[in-house]
Amino acid sequence: MERLIIIGGGAAGMTAASWVRRLKPNMHVTVFESTKMVSHAPCGIPYFTEGLFDDENLFMTYTPEYFIEKRKINVKTNSKVEEVDLRSRIVVVRENQEKRKYEFDYLLFSTGARPKKINAEGDRIFYVHHPAEASYIRQKLWSFNRIAIIGGGILGIEMAEALRARGKKIVLIHRGRYLLNKMLDEDMGKIVTDKVESEIELKLNESLVSVIEEGRVVITDKGKYDVDATVVAIGVEPNIDLVKDQLKIGQTGAIWADNHMRTSVENVYAAGDSTESINIITKKPDWVPFAPVANKMGFVAGNNIGGKDVTFPGVVGTMITKFEEFIIGKTGVTENEAKRYNIKTVSAIVHHKTRARYYPGSKDIIVKLIAEADTMRIIGAQIVGEEEVLGRLNMMAAVIQKGFTAEDLFFVETGYVPPVNRVWDVVTLAARKLFSGISGE
Amino acid sequence: MERLIIIGGGAAGMTAASWVRRLKPNMHVTVFESTKMVSHAPCGIPYFTEGLFDDENLFMTYTPEYFIEKRKINVKTNSKVEEVDLRSRIVVVRENQEKRKYEFDYLLFSTGARPKKINAEGDRIFYVHHPAEASYIRQKLWSFNRIAIIGGGILGIEMAEALRARGKKIVLIHRGRYLLNKMLDEDMGKIVTDKVESEIELKLNESLVSVIEEGRVVITDKGKYDVDATVVAIGVEPNIDLVKDQLKIGQTGAIWADNHMRTSVENVYAAGDSTESINIITKKPDWVPFAPVANKMGFVAGNNIGGKDVTFPGVVGTMITKFEEFIIGKTGVTENEAKRYNIKTVSAIVHHKTRARYYPGSKDIIVKLIAEADTMRIIGAQIVGEEEVLGRLNMMAAVIQKGFTAEDLFFVETGYVPPVNRVWDVVTLAARKLFSGISGE
Repeated sequence: MERLIIIGGGAAGMTAASWVRRLKPNMHVTVFESTKMVSHAPCGIPYFTEGLFDDENLFMTYTPEYFIEKRKINVKTNSKVEEVDLRSRIVVVRENQEKRKYEFDYLLFSTGARPKKINAEGDRIFYVHHPAEASYIRQKLWSFNRIAIIGGGILGIEMAEALRARGKKIVLIHRGRYLLNKMLDEDMGKIVTDKVESEIELKLNESLVSVIEEGRVVITDKGKYDVDATVVAIGVEPNIDLVKDQLKIGQTGAIWADNHMRTSVENVYAAGDSTESINIITKKPDWVPFAPVANKMGFVAGNNIGGKDVTFPGVVGTMITKFEEFIIGKTGVTENEAKRYNIKTVSAIVHHKTRARYYPGSKDIIVKLIAEADTMRIIGAQIVGEEEVLGRLNMMAAVIQKGFTAEDLFFVETGYVPPVNRVWDVVTLAARKLFSGISGE
Repeated sequence: MERLIIIGGGAAGMTAASWVRRLKPNMHVTVFESTKMVSHAPCGIPYFTEGLFDDENLFMTYTPEYFIEKRKINVKTNSKVEEVDLRSRIVVVRENQEKRKYEFDYLLFSTGARPKKINAEGDRIFYVHHPAEASYIRQKLWSFNRIAIIGGGILGIEMAEALRARGKKIVLIHRGRYLLNKMLDEDMGKIVTDKVESEIELKLNESLVSVIEEGRVVITDKGKYDVDATVVAIGVEPNIDLVKDQLKIGQTGAIWADNHMRTSVENVYAAGDSTESINIITKKPDWVPFAPVANKMGFVAGNNIGGKDVTFPGVVGTMITKFEEFIIGKTGVTENEAKRYNIKTVSAIVHHKTRARYYPGSKDIIVKLIAEADTMRIIGAQIVGEEEVLGRLNMMAAVIQKGFTAEDLFFVETGYVPPVNRVWDVVTLAARKLFSGISGE
C-alpha cells in the first residue's frame, strides 16, 4: 500500500489529504500536526481577541476527529516532525514524548508560515499567529491596559481594532510612511491611514530599535513608549527549516514547486504558505501566504498525488482586511510593485457610492485600477469601501487573471438596483476613466 | 455645422449626447424628451413609492439645466417627437402646443421601453414606469388600502415590497409557477417565492382574465379579487412606433443595430431599451432593457457618432433585484433558456454563508452556476443572498463574457477576511462542484 505523509495539518495539508483520500481510497494517508488543531487558519485570531467568539474549536473548519472518522485520514495532532530525510524517505516524529520513525512513498510539505521575530525576549512580547495559542494570548492581552503594536500591515491594524474594541489604549508603531504599504499605493494607503489615525495613536516612519523590560518598553529611532505589553506583527516567513537543505528554495525564500506542486525531489510535494508560486502578471516567483491560495494549492497537490492532472495557474496576490467600517482589498500588483518590475502603468481612482443617491444608507467606495500602459491590460486593483468590496475585489482578481483590458472591463454587464449600486458601477467608471480619461457618471 | 438629433433623453440618449459633445465640440446636438425629466431611470420608482425619498429630481442623474449649461447640449423637455422621416431627414416635434420641424444629419433613436398594457381602462389601474409620473401614482396609491399587483417579475415584487412597507394589503397575482420565472430557474425561484409568500398574499399559476370597475375588481382564471386599485407590472416592450416602418426591426421586436449601434439606415443610430443586441453566449439576438446596458449602448453610439471606433460586445443579461433582505441576481442564461437554445448544461447549487462561522451577522448566500456540458464553460449564474451579492454577480458577468471554464473560475484568487467571507468563497465552491462533483469546504 502506498504511503503519503503530510507534514502540517493546516488549510493546504488537510485539503490535500481529503482529495487524496477521495481519489486513492487505498493510499495510507498520515498527517502530522505539531499542535492540537487541524484545518486551522490564523485569520480569526483578531476577532477572537476582540471577544467576538469564545469557542476556539471554531478556528477549525473540521476537527481532527472529523477527519479521522468521516474521512479515514490518519491525523496525528501534537505530533511534531523533528527530522525529514528525503533520500531514505523517512520522517522522525515526536509523539507523546517519544520519537518514532515513519517511511513514506509520497510526502507533502505544508508547514505554513511563522511570524518574523524581533531580537528580544520577554513574557510580555506576543506574536499572534497560531490559533492553538490564541486563548493564552487573549487572556494575557485582556489583562493589560496600554499595548504597543509593532507593524502597520494587515495583522497590525486588525489587532489594533480588536484591542481597541476591548478598551485598550493602543500605540501602533509602523516603519512605513503610511499603513498597509506593502498592499496599497500611497494614494489609497493614505485614506486608510487617516481613518486609523483618527481612532488610534499612530506612529509612522518609526523604526523599532528594541523592546526591553520583558515587553514593557518599546524603543524606536524616534521615541520610547512605556506600555504593559507589546504585540509584534512585522510579517511572516515560510516555515521551512526542516527541509531547506534538501529541497530547492525559490527566490522568495519559500519552497520552489512547479505548477503541479511538485518540489525538486520526486514524489515530494509542497503546498500552502511554505510554498512559492508564479505571479500571473509578472511571470516572476511570488509568495502569497493567505488561506485561499493555500487551500487551492492543497487541492492541486491532493489531486495530483491522487493521480489526476491539475495545474495551479499561479497567483495574483489578492488581499483583504478590515478596519472598523472600512473593508480594504487589493489584487494584482500595486503601482509601486509594477515600478520594481519595470512595468509602465496608467492608473485611475474613482470615489463613488454604493447605492443610488436617493437610497438610504449609501456608503463610500473608492477604487483604484492600474493598467499596463502599452496594452491597457488591467494588472492591479485597490478598493476601500464600507460594503460590497469583497465581490468587486473577486471580480478584479478574475479580470486580472484573464487579462481583460480596461475596455473589456468597462463593458462587463454589471448589475444595477438602487439599494446596492449606482447605474454606473464604480469599477465601470474607473475602467472608463482609464481608457477615456473622463470621470463622472 | 453637422446636426445630431436625439429622440429620448433617458440614460442612453443623454450618455450619447455627452460623448458627442466631448468628441465633436462643433456638432449641434439637440435632445427631444417628451417629459420634463432627462437622464432618468425608472428603477427608483418602487423606492419613491415606499417613501424612502420625496424629491423627484433625484430620479435624474443630471438635470436638463446641467446638460444645457455645463455640457452645452440643446435639451428640449416636454417636447414630443410626433413624426420621423428618415428619408428626408426631418423630425416633427410638438413643443408648447406648437408643431415644429427639425432637420438632422445624424439621428439617435433612444426612446426606451414602455409598460405592456392590459385590455382595460380605469383611473385605478396603474402602470409604474416613468419617473415623471411617479409623484402622481404614489399619491394615488398611498390613498388606497388593498392593492392588487399583476405580475411577479422584478417590478412586481419590488412594488409589493414598497406598498407593503406603506402598510398596504397586497395581493400579488402571477401567471407562472414561481416568481421571477424569466430570471431564475425553478430551484432558485422557489427560494424567492417562499420568502415572498411568507410576507405577502401570493397567487401563483393564475392568469389574468380582466380588470373591471375602473381597477377595483381583478378577475383571473381562478378567482376574483376586490381591491382598491390595481398595479400592472407584466413587463415592458420597446417603444418604437415612431420608426418601426422605417428601420429594420430585430427578432426580439426591438430596433436592430450593429455593434456600433448603427441601424439599417445610414447615420441613424439606436441605443438603449428600444434597441436589441446580440447575446454573447447564444450569439442570437437578445433584448436587455436595463439601465447599465442602455448607458453603455449610449456610450458606444456617442463615441461612434463622435468619430471614434467603439464596439459594443453584446449582452449577457445581467439582472438584479431586492425583496426585503434578499438580493436576487442573475447573469448569463438560465437552464430554462439554455434548453430553448439546445445548449446541454450541467449546474451546481451551493448554500453558503457570507462570513466566517465565528463572525457575527453572517448571512445566507446561495449560488447556482450553469456550465455548457461539453466545454465546461460557465454560461449562467443565479445568486440569492443578503449581502455581497452584487459584486459576485458582476464577477460572474465578467466570467461569462470572457468564457471562463469552471476550472478557471475555481482558480480565481478570491479574497478572504472573516468579517466578509469564508475561506472558500461560495462561487469557488460552486465552480468546484461543477467540475469535481464534490461539495463542502
